[in-house]
Amino acid sequence: MKRKSFAQARCPVARSLDSIGDWWTLLLIRDALRGPRRFSDFVESLGLARNVLSARLRRLVEAGIFEQRPAEDGSDGLRYQLTEKGRGLQVVIMALRQWGEDNLFGEGEEMSVQVDRAGGPIRRLIVQATDGRPLRPEDVNIEPGHKRSRARAAEAGPGSA
Amino acid sequence: MKRKSFAQARCPVARSLDSIGDWWTLLLIRDALRGPRRFSDFVESLGLARNVLSARLRRLVEAGIFEQRPAEDGSDGLRYQLTEKGRGLQVVIMALRQWGEDNLFGEGEEMSVQVDRAGGPIRRLIVQATDGRPLRPEDVNIEPGHKRSRARAAEAGPGSA
Repeated sequence: MKRKSFAQARCPVARSLDSIGDWWTLLLIRDALRGPRRFSDFVESLGLARNVLSARLRRLVEAGIFEQRPAEDGSDGLRYQLTEKGRGLQVVIMALRQWGEDNLFGEGEEMSVQVDRAGGPIRRLIVQATDGRPLRPEDVNIEPGHKRSRARAAEAGPGSA
Repeated sequence: MKRKSFAQARCPVARSLDSIGDWWTLLLIRDALRGPRRFSDFVESLGLARNVLSARLRRLVEAGIFEQRPAEDGSDGLRYQLTEKGRGLQVVIMALRQWGEDNLFGEGEEMSVQVDRAGGPIRRLIVQATDGRPLRPEDVNIEPGHKRSRARAAEAGPGSA
């Protein structure tokens, strides 16, 4: 389908989605967050045509989200492993997970859950001001033109409790 | 393209992506988080073919993410407005935004930013245990079969600081 490209958009949301590509790409990220994956692991998990999957993985390597590495256990074949940039999508996957948990399962229906390896549940992600106030959609403004600088990311802080 | 349907998947991430559909759907959500939107607003923002947009919006209404309402100012035509379920995607959009800010802009390149209407930046979203420890991908386990219950959401807590 013909559409605008968002690769040069000023909106980071649009650029992110343009970079990720097809919606099922995030399922590749989900799988690889659990560790390096074979091509065949992805085929099995997603049930995709091999040529479609292959093209998408190539683009994700070009985008610096995946890299190809030999298996750590010395077995044959390359593995797809997330880069640091790719691992940064963990929070996107978690946000999708929590929304799905809240909205897409009937009472009593079985779902997989993520838990802290040290035991216990995972904190709910919420949009907050730096002082911890929850921010609803109407509590935020969009400002159109900021220059990207390394300083900005530090300013917003890591957001730990 | 033929692929598995994930509408009945046990994984909430897969169900969420299946429910949202095409990747650019999240740009409709992004736009509507700023307030109710006309059909023509979406056409202009995304540059999509009208029939494609129309089909997607119909599915999003069926999925309970959008609802159609008369304009609040009494002007003609219906508006697409997010339901509470749809508004819940705010955190997904914010996670995509922050990842894009971190990874997809060159030094000095202009980007739009979201700010707290009361002034100041928005807290960075991070995956955390309930005690506030940051959790890397390797710090979480997936447990396959939990029954969905209303109690679980409360247990994980609102996660405010």
